[in-house]
Amino acid sequence: MSAVASFDAAPSDFTGWMKTTRGRAEAALDRVLPAATVVPTKLHDAMRYATLGGGKRVRAMLVYAAGAWAGADGTPAGAACLDAAACAVELIHAYSLVHDDLPSMDDDDLRRGQPTVHVAYDEATALLVGDALQALAFEVLAKSSAPDRAAAQVALLASASGSLGMAGGQAIDLDSVGKALAWPDLEAMHRAKTGALLRAAVMLGATAVHTPGDRESDALAHYAAAVGLAFQVVDDVLDVETDSATLGKTAGKDAMHDKPTVVTTLGLDRAKTLAQTLHGEADRALSLLGDDADRLRDIADFIIGRSY
Amino acid sequence: MSAVASFDAAPSDFTGWMKTTRGRAEAALDRVLPAATVVPTKLHDAMRYATLGGGKRVRAMLVYAAGAWAGADGTPAGAACLDAAACAVELIHAYSLVHDDLPSMDDDDLRRGQPTVHVAYDEATALLVGDALQALAFEVLAKSSAPDRAAAQVALLASASGSLGMAGGQAIDLDSVGKALAWPDLEAMHRAKTGALLRAAVMLGATAVHTPGDRESDALAHYAAAVGLAFQVVDDVLDVETDSATLGKTAGKDAMHDKPTVVTTLGLDRAKTLAQTLHGEADRALSLLGDDADRLRDIADFIIGRSY
Repeated sequence: MSAVASFDAAPSDFTGWMKTTRGRAEAALDRVLPAATVVPTKLHDAMRYATLGGGKRVRAMLVYAAGAWAGADGTPAGAACLDAAACAVELIHAYSLVHDDLPSMDDDDLRRGQPTVHVAYDEATALLVGDALQALAFEVLAKSSAPDRAAAQVALLASASGSLGMAGGQAIDLDSVGKALAWPDLEAMHRAKTGALLRAAVMLGATAVHTPGDRESDALAHYAAAVGLAFQVVDDVLDVETDSATLGKTAGKDAMHDKPTVVTTLGLDRAKTLAQTLHGEADRALSLLGDDADRLRDIADFIIGRSY
Repeated sequence: MSAVASFDAAPSDFTGWMKTTRGRAEAALDRVLPAATVVPTKLHDAMRYATLGGGKRVRAMLVYAAGAWAGADGTPAGAACLDAAACAVELIHAYSLVHDDLPSMDDDDLRRGQPTVHVAYDEATALLVGDALQALAFEVLAKSSAPDRAAAQVALLASASGSLGMAGGQAIDLDSVGKALAWPDLEAMHRAKTGALLRAAVMLGATAVHTPGDRESDALAHYAAAVGLAFQVVDDVLDVETDSATLGKTAGKDAMHDKPTVVTTLGLDRAKTLAQTLHGEADRALSLLGDDADRLRDIADFIIGRSY
């Protein structure tokens, strides 16, 4: 993999890269979201409220980091593909949060320290915001600059978002309320609900401009699977160890909703050990991918390293 | 345009063609929807409940009729593209009905004579059913057999479904409750809410295997715009002239919800005259498209001819 031209100018330290990358994702999202002055104005205003101005942008960072590994940022067309993929995964993520927060789902009033969309607007608007954000995600990806690759990218993201991915994981999550799930079932749920989209982010970035070889694809998939599951393990650990103000959302809400978590299922110590194990798996996968995988390694450290 | 091989075996009369085409769409949908035995089983069962076994399949018929005009059915690959496009528009339509019926939207208990999804299952499941059906629509279309065309087809359908199409029209519709809209505003709402997806169906079928010339594209767009608006005009006319049992859904529900309709805005006579005018517009557009547009003409007669 070649060095990535446009990232050479970015700050070499990871904190700076994260800031730059978040800003780049935020700017790309701002460009693809219709202005709040465009009819229907309330819907567009709410779509922007749901999407802009917050969030860790972990999914966008995974796109850009995998794209950096693939050298996708070396040309303007490649950089545009990464922007499209970063927007698409963040739009899917944003829509899922808006729908998950609805009264018929998790019934949450607070998200990133702000009123959720159905509280700030109304339930019907929140429903349509989610629907329209999902459509926009696929529109943006389909219009990215390489039409022959775009179809495969849409298929990848759609599969990760649908009934065998994120939406399916959410359905299993809802059905688990009040149940003591065995760890394999809880793991399968998290791999679908959170993991599928994080894996899609890595693969969208890595395949934006060319298709990696089988050995590299396998390593990327292993990395993404480990980081994807670890992300949820860490979330559950932090959820019991951090207060709402620090998290910017309601802490302990899964336990409050009587949902099984990694911590209630495995216990805190085993959950932390699992995070460490997954960190090791991610590192081993990355060792097959060479120096250009440094940003992917930084993200694994950032996501998982906070929890043990 | 060449004659369409696989349609030669179909019954030559339109009633027979409709029956064959509905069966073809239903079979294609059955193939792309995960079995109800696949985990999460409740979600997949509800997705099949929402999608299969009912509906006029007008959108699928428009895909196949436009595909017949384009000669797309002449090869197995072309026929598979039409099946994918027909599935995609019907999946988007099905998701929109499930979400529209939710308590926070139209709060409807009856659809095609059966309990709506949130009544037969629950609200959270209905929300996820809609979300997963939308993702499946784009997955199916993206995986259709011509990747270089698939990206453009996804972009077309996503744009028709999103905040400047169907979802946007729904938002305007919700905001119109209790208001007396001027006809131009109501027309714009219907062109987005219902018309955009019907236009997409025509254009997906017509562009499945090759891109028509500008003159033909314009004629197709005019046809689709006329039929798309007429579809809603006719719906509103039938809504005041037909009872719930015949319609298979709650009759007069827009008036009941204090929403402006074509009939409450223009009056019944002018609404019927408008249907006739739009029928003429559709016919004039079709006259530019030659004999292979016969099925498109039949559909216009079928959709609009019922109302005056």
